[in-house]
Amino acid sequence: MLNKALTKISNYYEEMVADRRFLHMHPELSHQEVHTPAFIADRLESLGIEVQRNVGGRGVVGMIRGGQPGKTVAFRADFDALPITDQKDVSYKSTIPGVMHACGHDGHTAALLGFAKAMNEIKESLPGNIVLIHQFGEELSPGGARGMIEDGCLDGVDLVFGAHLQSQMPANKVYVRDGFLQASEDSFKITVTGFGTHGAEPHTGVDPILAASHIMIALQSIASRNADPLKELVVSVGSFHAGHADNVIPNEAVMEGTIRVFDPELRIIAGRRVIEIAKSVGAGLGCDVHVDIIKGYDSVNNDPDAMNLVRRGVAEAFSEENIIETNPIMPVEDFSYYLQHRPGAYFFVGAQMDNKENVFPHHHEKFDFYEPAMEMTAKVFASTFFEAQK
Amino acid sequence: MLNKALTKISNYYEEMVADRRFLHMHPELSHQEVHTPAFIADRLESLGIEVQRNVGGRGVVGMIRGGQPGKTVAFRADFDALPITDQKDVSYKSTIPGVMHACGHDGHTAALLGFAKAMNEIKESLPGNIVLIHQFGEELSPGGARGMIEDGCLDGVDLVFGAHLQSQMPANKVYVRDGFLQASEDSFKITVTGFGTHGAEPHTGVDPILAASHIMIALQSIASRNADPLKELVVSVGSFHAGHADNVIPNEAVMEGTIRVFDPELRIIAGRRVIEIAKSVGAGLGCDVHVDIIKGYDSVNNDPDAMNLVRRGVAEAFSEENIIETNPIMPVEDFSYYLQHRPGAYFFVGAQMDNKENVFPHHHEKFDFYEPAMEMTAKVFASTFFEAQK
Amino acid sequence: MLNKALTKISNYYEEMVADRRFLHMHPELSHQEVHTPAFIADRLESLGIEVQRNVGGRGVVGMIRGGQPGKTVAFRADFDALPITDQKDVSYKSTIPGVMHACGHDGHTAALLGFAKAMNEIKESLPGNIVLIHQFGEELSPGGARGMIEDGCLDGVDLVFGAHLQSQMPANKVYVRDGFLQASEDSFKITVTGFGTHGAEPHTGVDPILAASHIMIALQSIASRNADPLKELVVSVGSFHAGHADNVIPNEAVMEGTIRVFDPELRIIAGRRVIEIAKSVGAGLGCDVHVDIIKGYDSVNNDPDAMNLVRRGVAEAFSEENIIETNPIMPVEDFSYYLQHRPGAYFFVGAQMDNKENVFPHHHEKFDFYEPAMEMTAKVFASTFFEAQK
Amino acid sequence: MLNKALTKISNYYEEMVADRRFLHMHPELSHQEVHTPAFIADRLESLGIEVQRNVGGRGVVGMIRGGQPGKTVAFRADFDALPITDQKDVSYKSTIPGVMHACGHDGHTAALLGFAKAMNEIKESLPGNIVLIHQFGEELSPGGARGMIEDGCLDGVDLVFGAHLQSQMPANKVYVRDGFLQASEDSFKITVTGFGTHGAEPHTGVDPILAASHIMIALQSIASRNADPLKELVVSVGSFHAGHADNVIPNEAVMEGTIRVFDPELRIIAGRRVIEIAKSVGAGLGCDVHVDIIKGYDSVNNDPDAMNLVRRGVAEAFSEENIIETNPIMPVEDFSYYLQHRPGAYFFVGAQMDNKENVFPHHHEKFDFYEPAMEMTAKVFASTFFEAQK
Repeated sequence: MLNKALTKISNYYEEMVADRRFLHMHPELSHQEVHTPAFIADRLESLGIEVQRNVGGRGVVGMIRGGQPGKTVAFRADFDALPITDQKDVSYKSTIPGVMHACGHDGHTAALLGFAKAMNEIKESLPGNIVLIHQFGEELSPGGARGMIEDGCLDGVDLVFGAHLQSQMPANKVYVRDGFLQASEDSFKITVTGFGTHGAEPHTGVDPILAASHIMIALQSIASRNADPLKELVVSVGSFHAGHADNVIPNEAVMEGTIRVFDPELRIIAGRRVIEIAKSVGAGLGCDVHVDIIKGYDSVNNDPDAMNLVRRGVAEAFSEENIIETNPIMPVEDFSYYLQHRPGAYFFVGAQMDNKENVFPHHHEKFDFYEPAMEMTAKVFASTFFEAQK
Repeated sequence: MLNKALTKISNYYEEMVADRRFLHMHPELSHQEVHTPAFIADRLESLGIEVQRNVGGRGVVGMIRGGQPGKTVAFRADFDALPITDQKDVSYKSTIPGVMHACGHDGHTAALLGFAKAMNEIKESLPGNIVLIHQFGEELSPGGARGMIEDGCLDGVDLVFGAHLQSQMPANKVYVRDGFLQASEDSFKITVTGFGTHGAEPHTGVDPILAASHIMIALQSIASRNADPLKELVVSVGSFHAGHADNVIPNEAVMEGTIRVFDPELRIIAGRRVIEIAKSVGAGLGCDVHVDIIKGYDSVNNDPDAMNLVRRGVAEAFSEENIIETNPIMPVEDFSYYLQHRPGAYFFVGAQMDNKENVFPHHHEKFDFYEPAMEMTAKVFASTFFEAQK
Repeated sequence: MLNKALTKISNYYEEMVADRRFLHMHPELSHQEVHTPAFIADRLESLGIEVQRNVGGRGVVGMIRGGQPGKTVAFRADFDALPITDQKDVSYKSTIPGVMHACGHDGHTAALLGFAKAMNEIKESLPGNIVLIHQFGEELSPGGARGMIEDGCLDGVDLVFGAHLQSQMPANKVYVRDGFLQASEDSFKITVTGFGTHGAEPHTGVDPILAASHIMIALQSIASRNADPLKELVVSVGSFHAGHADNVIPNEAVMEGTIRVFDPELRIIAGRRVIEIAKSVGAGLGCDVHVDIIKGYDSVNNDPDAMNLVRRGVAEAFSEENIIETNPIMPVEDFSYYLQHRPGAYFFVGAQMDNKENVFPHHHEKFDFYEPAMEMTAKVFASTFFEAQK
Repeated sequence: MLNKALTKISNYYEEMVADRRFLHMHPELSHQEVHTPAFIADRLESLGIEVQRNVGGRGVVGMIRGGQPGKTVAFRADFDALPITDQKDVSYKSTIPGVMHACGHDGHTAALLGFAKAMNEIKESLPGNIVLIHQFGEELSPGGARGMIEDGCLDGVDLVFGAHLQSQMPANKVYVRDGFLQASEDSFKITVTGFGTHGAEPHTGVDPILAASHIMIALQSIASRNADPLKELVVSVGSFHAGHADNVIPNEAVMEGTIRVFDPELRIIAGRRVIEIAKSVGAGLGCDVHVDIIKGYDSVNNDPDAMNLVRRGVAEAFSEENIIETNPIMPVEDFSYYLQHRPGAYFFVGAQMDNKENVFPHHHEKFDFYEPAMEMTAKVFASTFFEAQK
């Protein structure tokens, strides 16, 4: 039966390309998606698949009920685009100025649609059910995943999987990892309030630039002293602004930064240390310090058993040689929330273009990917589904 | 003869007030003065005083030749205004939007004109000559003093004196000090160049915010370690700017600051230390650092013997009780350059308004001063002139 | 044949215990071993095994030539003890005051002897050869491994394996890891030379305590900014000494620290950054800085294919359940050098005592281990040997 | 009458030299003086001067009652020596190993005895009284001054004067200053408690060296930001000690330092800032910080009117040319306490040896001074006494 599914997917490759290019030409920004979810839902309905619209806001959930008993397995594709102007010179270039599918979510959607069509055609003989999660708003916190979960998209689901095309990883490979795959992210804003005065009379004020500089340096100790050296962590300050004149000590200095970490406990420690350091070191220099921590996505933490289903799926559909054990990466992904509710795994599918000169990173204005990777994604989904039923 | 001079000055007080109020209503910005020097030169000529116009640019120099042999003594008044909109509610409010005599230079000019009129009337019996230096552009570096000196305003001069009205010092007092009275000022701009990168991948870049913070803190050691604790010094950073996003490490951080010091040797040390610290500490953190030092005015260093002439002059014209030994102050003044070429002294004349609620600091949009302090200034000039001839 | 070997090893367990306890009672310090290598060599000779003494100094190498063709596989056990006084209350307590087998090397040696005896008895039917590497001086840099390798202990060897008993890891488990298992270590000493003076006159000297403090803080940036957050690194300063009086600024401050890292490239970066930071930041504060880096052991980097032979060996001799994928650890081990010359792997054998109250860490004066772990070690060696021949 | 006094003092110069050399040969440590106060008291009694022994502990107070009405003026000389071994090659070298008059207090005492003898001989015609304060324990806090004051040595006194010989100031000059002449001193000890751990596992402990380094650097901000740049201040750390091994993070770091300042308000601010910075910055880095401030002598603050009496005294006894207006100095002196209870002044008498190669600083093991400076001291005392009566 796997072979049947794989053959069907191969046959629908051209259709995936057409879908992907259509979506590429008509991108929509996160949390503003209207036509994209309609396109998806209409398509699924036209295939005779049960559809729920507006799940958690703008999400679409499809359900393929297998004719045989088995587990219910969900597969997720995100469909939002980015506020970037497409600079590629291709026929399927974005038609919307300032909006572009520069992260491959068009490909994710097309692959899941192709997978759905193929699996739906053999549903009578399928053991278990397939849930199709088409998610909105992944690129922009708070994301779409949490809303869709609250709205029931995982109800009845036993396992959940997702994949991301990667334009900078060689094609024909699937990149897997047990445990942490993508980092969590929190932003912080540190406002250091001193007391402004003339630069020639520092003793009549309190210098917030000096206090903020001490804080900036002390923040380095989170990575160097507070984090287990075996656990990955970054605390970076990206902006520091204070004052307008060379001879006036300002009232205030403001720093903004980011915390990236995999381990949830270390994430809590890091956030707490940012606050402790900023407040206490700032107070030592006479300043009052306010810290805002803006919580971003949690880290993606793959279940090893579910990950093994993907590994076996790849081995079945392709071969063991197509599996690459990969390192974790620092970018974030709200697939993390599905994994907090159900066992599952997230993985990468290599999508590097042949002509390497054309390889632009994700979020680049000339980003593109190797389209056959969509077929591979759909096939790994199919094969993983069958492994999950064993 | 002193008494004759003092009586005349008293008689001309109303005229000083009129002149001052006229000038107050018609202020001109530094290095843009046209009508003010013409007004001064015309007045001096109308009194029959020899005048040179356009000295060193926009300055006016008058010469009163005494009938008796003696020293040539110069007195200086500055006449430029500030880019401030007058917010006072008085009849002599500035008529020029955005320009205001908010530092009392109108009063300095009126006092020197009154002094000139009085002394010119008794010139036949005067021992020695009087040089009247009406200076432009004091408020804005590079100032007017150096140009006027280069253009010969001190030629033949034996001693040089100047005074500043002070709206926040009690009236009827003259404030004197041997040695350093006002600080030198240099500005600096430190550009710290790292290598921008994603905040989650600090190792692929070089963080200029961290380097600049280290520099900021290390700059404190100039005051704490490099300066003789018995010598006054301030190094302050007034602005620090870097980056635009919380999760992007920027290429560059820029700090701007000021160095205030009295002792010229310590000034050189401080400037050198700013450069050494910034470049070397920055390099230690992997950054390339460029430092611009923008030299401002030198410090005002009073000759004790010349200062004693003022002290005796005050004692003669008023009494010893009207003399206050004062502390040095951090604001700058380009009278410093006259003192590098001739022995002389600069002093303050108290000009606090009676109703203290009206006391606004210099450079404030409601600044005003106690006008009788002009009469006192002219009288101290006269008395000091006679003391200088003893 | 594996079963035969395993049975023999089981039979020789009591002998391993006797050997281990004898060695435990007669420990010798690193690079001072005399009786221990003689004991080992005599034993091997008494079994009819070819022996080389004084290999690379104090090492002993045995050779069991199998009767069948196959790979030559080396197994290494270290035999030096530590400068610690044994505080255990056991019959086999150290008889040498101040010297103790507090790290389990006695157990490693006994296990390798038992393994040798068993395998030697079936050598006619063995495919390939077994090299027995009994190494001296592991606890004390520069270690014994490099000398033994230079002296030829790996000549003709195809694969090399080693194991360490771990008193704080549960018994009956073998702990494996592809790639980096143990860190590299370098020590550094930073001497910051200023210019001493009276504490009341800092400007007449150069303060080395301030410069060293700046360096100390800037060293934190190696972990926070220079290291890839996905790569483990620690830079710690353990001592900081300067001055003798509260009111005298001393000439010098001295800091000593350690660098632990797995990745050799990051190790080079870290060492270079310690030097750059110390010299350049120190210079910025006016000090001359000298940095000594004392190179310690390289990191232990397991070959994944060789590690898989161990995994399969454990699965064969015991079961898959006895394999634990472990995290890397920060302590160092000169087994690293064997792995630079031959493919191979190092692993841990759990040796936690039953009564957990007795579990003391390695290098503790009451350290002891679960003796059956020696039998497990010998069996994993045997099984791995056979896997290597497949 | 002044001339009579001056002539007598000149005549007694040889006796002063003899007294000084006798005392130089028999020095006694601070707060251990026995023979010295006995020598002084016996001498004064032998001259017929009223004497109180054991004033405030070991002090001696003499009283010369003038025959005419007038003010009571006190003159103070300290008489303790230092724990230094005399290395001079002179006939009057110290006979006590490890104890030496290395600061000139022997000279102070001899000068005051000579002055007393001369003035006592003309007491019938003296206007007012003379109090002779021979003080113990100046070199060692808490000093002898406070005890003697509490014990009444200033009862009935109108004015109090004192002088210090200065081996590094040119002879035949008297060095005066209105206001602050010598600094106050406080010592501090900062104990930073973290939590020791292995250097490879910083996250399991708290690093006190890092916290102490941050504190060290932040302490620089007291001079650079908290002190009025017009007021003198030094905060110096002279010792920093932590740890014993390069790879062990210690529990504790200890810093010791000194605060020198003239202005009592700034002194309070500085002490408070040391505590605030240490505790708060240390807490920000996770450490518990304890700060001990050990209060030393207050600053010496001369009354300008009393100082003018000295100026006029020097002018009368010598000339105006012998007066030097001097800068304040950082060393401390418990004469400060007399000035808190009575108007008065402290001044320096130049005592540089002719052969400048022999000029060693105070507290040096080869310290010596120009003995005629004792005669000058006694004469300035006499002349100042008469000025005080005018």
